[in-house]
Amino acid sequence: MRVELDRLQVVLADELGRRRADVVAVDPRLATLADLLVDFVAAGGKRLRPEFLWCGWRAAGGAVDSAPVLTVGVALELIQACALIHDDVIDRSERRRGRPATHRAVAKQHADAGRRGDSEHFGVSAAVLLGDLALAWADDLYTTGAAELGAVGRSLPVWQAMRTEVLSGQLLDLVATAAVTTDPASQAADAMRVNRFKTAAYTVERPLQLGAELAGAEADTVAALRIYGADVGVAFQLRDDLLGVYGDPAVTGKPAGDDLLEGKRTLLLATARAALAADPRLLGELDAGVGSADADSARLAAIIAGTGAPEVLEARIDELVISGLAALDRVDATGGPVIEAAARERLTALAHVATARRS
Amino acid sequence: MRVELDRLQVVLADELGRRRADVVAVDPRLATLADLLVDFVAAGGKRLRPEFLWCGWRAAGGAVDSAPVLTVGVALELIQACALIHDDVIDRSERRRGRPATHRAVAKQHADAGRRGDSEHFGVSAAVLLGDLALAWADDLYTTGAAELGAVGRSLPVWQAMRTEVLSGQLLDLVATAAVTTDPASQAADAMRVNRFKTAAYTVERPLQLGAELAGAEADTVAALRIYGADVGVAFQLRDDLLGVYGDPAVTGKPAGDDLLEGKRTLLLATARAALAADPRLLGELDAGVGSADADSARLAAIIAGTGAPEVLEARIDELVISGLAALDRVDATGGPVIEAAARERLTALAHVATARRS
Repeated sequence: MRVELDRLQVVLADELGRRRADVVAVDPRLATLADLLVDFVAAGGKRLRPEFLWCGWRAAGGAVDSAPVLTVGVALELIQACALIHDDVIDRSERRRGRPATHRAVAKQHADAGRRGDSEHFGVSAAVLLGDLALAWADDLYTTGAAELGAVGRSLPVWQAMRTEVLSGQLLDLVATAAVTTDPASQAADAMRVNRFKTAAYTVERPLQLGAELAGAEADTVAALRIYGADVGVAFQLRDDLLGVYGDPAVTGKPAGDDLLEGKRTLLLATARAALAADPRLLGELDAGVGSADADSARLAAIIAGTGAPEVLEARIDELVISGLAALDRVDATGGPVIEAAARERLTALAHVATARRS
Repeated sequence: MRVELDRLQVVLADELGRRRADVVAVDPRLATLADLLVDFVAAGGKRLRPEFLWCGWRAAGGAVDSAPVLTVGVALELIQACALIHDDVIDRSERRRGRPATHRAVAKQHADAGRRGDSEHFGVSAAVLLGDLALAWADDLYTTGAAELGAVGRSLPVWQAMRTEVLSGQLLDLVATAAVTTDPASQAADAMRVNRFKTAAYTVERPLQLGAELAGAEADTVAALRIYGADVGVAFQLRDDLLGVYGDPAVTGKPAGDDLLEGKRTLLLATARAALAADPRLLGELDAGVGSADADSARLAAIIAGTGAPEVLEARIDELVISGLAALDRVDATGGPVIEAAARERLTALAHVATARRS
């Protein structure tokens, strides 16, 4: 896959370079804002979504030297850029990928240049529009790639579902976080639903399915890839929840315990709260601290660890990886359409990479 | 055109109804948020963009009973919904189309239901995501409509340019408003550039061109429609600038003088400031009031009126309408491809409707 990611980077630099030029053509003063977006996407993260897209494509027999599927891969990275830039506005996050969040970086440019008006609000406003630009460009590139493959008809429903699902998952995350319920079971159910739509479908299941549909996959292959994607995708989010509390800031790019101070409603937290039902004092201390910016996050992390919730999540991650991989075994065992061998191997490796401990 | 707008409304209700169901399928608690978006688009505004799309389509000989072009028309209304919802967040506007702005409506729902967290920020967060949803749906519908017409290849560059232009125009509006310059000539140049990309290209020129390309128009027809679109589009924005200061709130749906209190950098304001170069006292009073929420907007409007700037803009609007219509005459006079007669008539009427006094 390394080779494909290198080729993706070339397509990405080329496509974003042309789009940056379109923005600068409107006015040269927009160059610094356009650069912030382009650099954010070019520096990138783990490129998980293009990887899964590529696996789906190859699994269904897509050609190893296809360029249009890489164009669609860049589209997925742009959707992710929009999601992160807007999420950081919504979560009022200071940092992302070890750098200032986009709205913070723009606010600093505004203040340093001594411009008129409120720097903070200028940062948020520009970040909203830069996220919109990323979303619009994502669609341009998806449509270009899919049209080149003659696959708009069979892939559009997947592309459509993916974007509605991730945005609905984000809305649900807001609604669930604002809910007044303190019942751990409802909180756990909400967290799993958010995990399913905001992360699993969007990060693994739909990219895999999209790649497979672009290659004209059989229904059985698509079905197996989707089960794998849903399970491994949720496992990936559960790992992310653990890292948000216990991860090494040098690796995650976010301060330790940030998720707790932000008040993120995770399965980890719901599991810990359920375990503390018999200990109102500790539960009270946890509830008072979560979502409060000046709480002692190390103390909160220790309370959660004391409940055994991290081990429950580790076990759940292991189960999900096993069930996801089993779906790939089953489709091979039917004697029907087989998942191409190298893609199969890569999917097995990715299931472990995406859900492994990083601390 | 009335008939086409009625048919547009049917397609719109059908498409948005299905997309609302997709959101509610993620979680039934999202129904109230989805309804806010759907109702906003269904209630609609003047439907100018679908009208111009339709005129471009018909001008180039597109069939009068085409459904896919109406699907693309709904896509334009969804782009506009995203633009307005995000603009209201950026401008911190209270009202839109005579109702509370989306972020305000969501904040009120949050507060009324007694949910956890800051209602204002919840409103802004949900509005960002609802705008994103509108933008994503817009692309789904454009691609669906264009693919049905077998016209993705020739129309995608227009669709692409339109979205990059409007978002770049909005970014430029932010940057120009934050500029420290007080030179009226630079301010006038900035205002005209924002008018060109944020309004004219997006509202008239590109929708017309998109319709024409979907119908497979000749290059001469497209060129004439684009000149018409650029000129009439700027005239439309200049009328909007006048209405933002002198309009009847019952017609505009916004408080009188709102643009002045918001500090909007319009050609009207730049023209008035240029005229006041010899009167530092009045210029100082105007500059102190514009952009200040508690200024006396009637007094500021009177200062601007005293400079004769409104008459300058009226003359400019008239010129632009004349030059736009002349472009249509020229293409007919070449003996080359002719603009279909009913569309031609409609374009003439629309040039007047979109730029006429409403006060």
